[in-house]
Amino acid sequence: MDLEKLNLVPLSKVIGKLKNVLLPIKKKGWSNIDDSIAKILADDVFAKLDNPPFNNSAIDGYAVKVEKIDEEQTFKILKKTSTPGSPFTGILKNKEAVKILTGAQIPEASDKIIFDEEVNIKEDKFSIRFKKNESSNIRFKGEDIKKGQLLFQKGYSINETDMPSLIASGNSRLATFDRLRVGLLKTGNEIKKKKIGKSAGSVLDSNGVPLAALFKRWGYEEISLGNVNDNLPEIKKALSQNLETVDVIVTTGGASAGKEDFISKLLLSEGEVYAWKIAIKPGRPIIFGRWNGKYIFGLPGNPVAAFVCALIFLRPSLGRVAGEINWFEPLSFKVISAFKKTKKVGRTEFLRAKLEKNNTVSVFPYEGSGRLTSLAWSNGLVKLDDEISNVVIGDKVTFIPYSSFY
Amino acid sequence: MDLEKLNLVPLSKVIGKLKNVLLPIKKKGWSNIDDSIAKILADDVFAKLDNPPFNNSAIDGYAVKVEKIDEEQTFKILKKTSTPGSPFTGILKNKEAVKILTGAQIPEASDKIIFDEEVNIKEDKFSIRFKKNESSNIRFKGEDIKKGQLLFQKGYSINETDMPSLIASGNSRLATFDRLRVGLLKTGNEIKKKKIGKSAGSVLDSNGVPLAALFKRWGYEEISLGNVNDNLPEIKKALSQNLETVDVIVTTGGASAGKEDFISKLLLSEGEVYAWKIAIKPGRPIIFGRWNGKYIFGLPGNPVAAFVCALIFLRPSLGRVAGEINWFEPLSFKVISAFKKTKKVGRTEFLRAKLEKNNTVSVFPYEGSGRLTSLAWSNGLVKLDDEISNVVIGDKVTFIPYSSFY
Repeated sequence: MDLEKLNLVPLSKVIGKLKNVLLPIKKKGWSNIDDSIAKILADDVFAKLDNPPFNNSAIDGYAVKVEKIDEEQTFKILKKTSTPGSPFTGILKNKEAVKILTGAQIPEASDKIIFDEEVNIKEDKFSIRFKKNESSNIRFKGEDIKKGQLLFQKGYSINETDMPSLIASGNSRLATFDRLRVGLLKTGNEIKKKKIGKSAGSVLDSNGVPLAALFKRWGYEEISLGNVNDNLPEIKKALSQNLETVDVIVTTGGASAGKEDFISKLLLSEGEVYAWKIAIKPGRPIIFGRWNGKYIFGLPGNPVAAFVCALIFLRPSLGRVAGEINWFEPLSFKVISAFKKTKKVGRTEFLRAKLEKNNTVSVFPYEGSGRLTSLAWSNGLVKLDDEISNVVIGDKVTFIPYSSFY
Repeated sequence: MDLEKLNLVPLSKVIGKLKNVLLPIKKKGWSNIDDSIAKILADDVFAKLDNPPFNNSAIDGYAVKVEKIDEEQTFKILKKTSTPGSPFTGILKNKEAVKILTGAQIPEASDKIIFDEEVNIKEDKFSIRFKKNESSNIRFKGEDIKKGQLLFQKGYSINETDMPSLIASGNSRLATFDRLRVGLLKTGNEIKKKKIGKSAGSVLDSNGVPLAALFKRWGYEEISLGNVNDNLPEIKKALSQNLETVDVIVTTGGASAGKEDFISKLLLSEGEVYAWKIAIKPGRPIIFGRWNGKYIFGLPGNPVAAFVCALIFLRPSLGRVAGEINWFEPLSFKVISAFKKTKKVGRTEFLRAKLEKNNTVSVFPYEGSGRLTSLAWSNGLVKLDDEISNVVIGDKVTFIPYSSFY
């Protein structure tokens, strides 16, 4: 295959185009924090409360007021203990100490918590010498989050690690974009939903379930548009009937460079094409565009290619359409190649790869995308950029764990 | 703090103990493939079908039978095309070629598919010269999955990338362990569910929501056991009332080394303790054990510490209890430190860290676990093992993305 002859568009150019043309389309709604994972903020979020809400102890110890540095002082321990939820509310005088537990509010006058372990109690007293620049062991009101502070920006996708900050800042109810409804249409005369039976040349639909699982993982609602034959009127009918119920359309199959190329035909003749004939592997044939006011993402029919292209193209594209301001970039790592490979310059390749414990990465021994077990075997993708022509054992290569896309 | 004096147990020893004592407890049930993410296989899975189900073309091209090598041969193109779902079912004779699309069943006699691009058609004929050891461009029946082959072992946790193999091998219904029911009890006099109001020293519960989100992500059902005060009878009552409805119990707070240490008190007096006083940071206080026949995992009350400990201890522990045979190990990476730090030997530390694009990692400027924003800021953890005492800029350190735990 001569890549030049095929006029394939480099991946970076395709991503650049998608970044420019795709726009957020969802309306603002409301979410409770416990149903907010993978939802996207429809407004900036500001802190309504300080965190910590009050000065509190970072340790288990004794709260005192420091009067002198580098000189022994003796403190008398009061009877009351300051615990989380039951703080000492009396007046702490000079030369008095109050037992305090981690997280408990500190007495107003106190400016220092002494570690339990540093205190040598005799009867109800202890003596101690403070040094200069010692930590106060106090967590100060608002030192983590200040009331009024901007915490998260509109277009940010919420995850588990954001939840404590959101709750503690008084944001347990959030303005979010409604979940994206993704219509999934599978095309192909050969695809059978349940049983292959006796139809010659038929295969089971192994695309729909993993793609629907990805959409769910990404926070979207999958709307199945079913399986249709490679037949333009049938495809148009299936899409037209569901146009109102879906926000975007994802198709599999039918975008072949061969004769039976119906999604391309549809977009080229009646729609708008954003990207087609992309210089990546696996990935051909793909087509992205717009038809009757809806974005359409035409993925390959091959389940390995469809899955990889969903990670590479759909994750950021659907994210943007769902309201994400920043273009999604998966976390990637430089690791050591345990494989060798030559490739064509001008094409980006994604290899099903397995990261081993010693920071080295292997690739599946068979490159063909007919190998479904290559997905199950691997835990991520090695990305070989356009300009790379050769990889040898020991080279640094880019590895993207599948979990980076979830 | 003198670590030796505290008799802290190294992390590796604690993990070793948990590996030994925790046992799978769930019954075998059944799942449809589209509801199988994060479910655990209760039986080995064998292929019921071959994949590919028949010999098919890896490319768009022409199917022929190779008669000679290194000698030009001329083929006559037949009228019919072999497409996916509509294969050519006639007899392909010598010197005949049939147009074929990717994925289509190949004619019985054919042993070679020629790329479209290599064919120069004149009228309905083309000539070509085959070389030795050229690829056949055929995907052979069963080359990916052989009927009868062991695909996945009992105790394996299913994810998106396994789905195509499962479906194509005829395994759309799976024997899986029932979802683990995780009871979550939050203790602490200071914890308020909704509003802080006027209660001195109170804080909002910012633990329950993220932990419940993690349990869901891991495929478990969260059963809220509510918030109770630091009070042994109250805690016992909450646990006893729900003992039948939960499989395991997770608690937050109340495991303090201070006076108000009720989960530890409960396990030490009436239960069995597997791990206590662990040499990690953040993480104290933690206690793991068994009470009244149920595993109990007592996490710290601090939301940062609770979240980190949930990733480190609960992910593998609950996985094992839910039926995972292999002890869960998150994918980790060697990356370049952009920070410096000294630490105590003998303690494993997990720092909230952010991986930047150039394979370098920064850590949150404030180590204290009172900083909830450190979780939102970070995208993973740097793990500093027991024996490390010093990290300088440019050192290689171990980074675990949060997504490795999902």
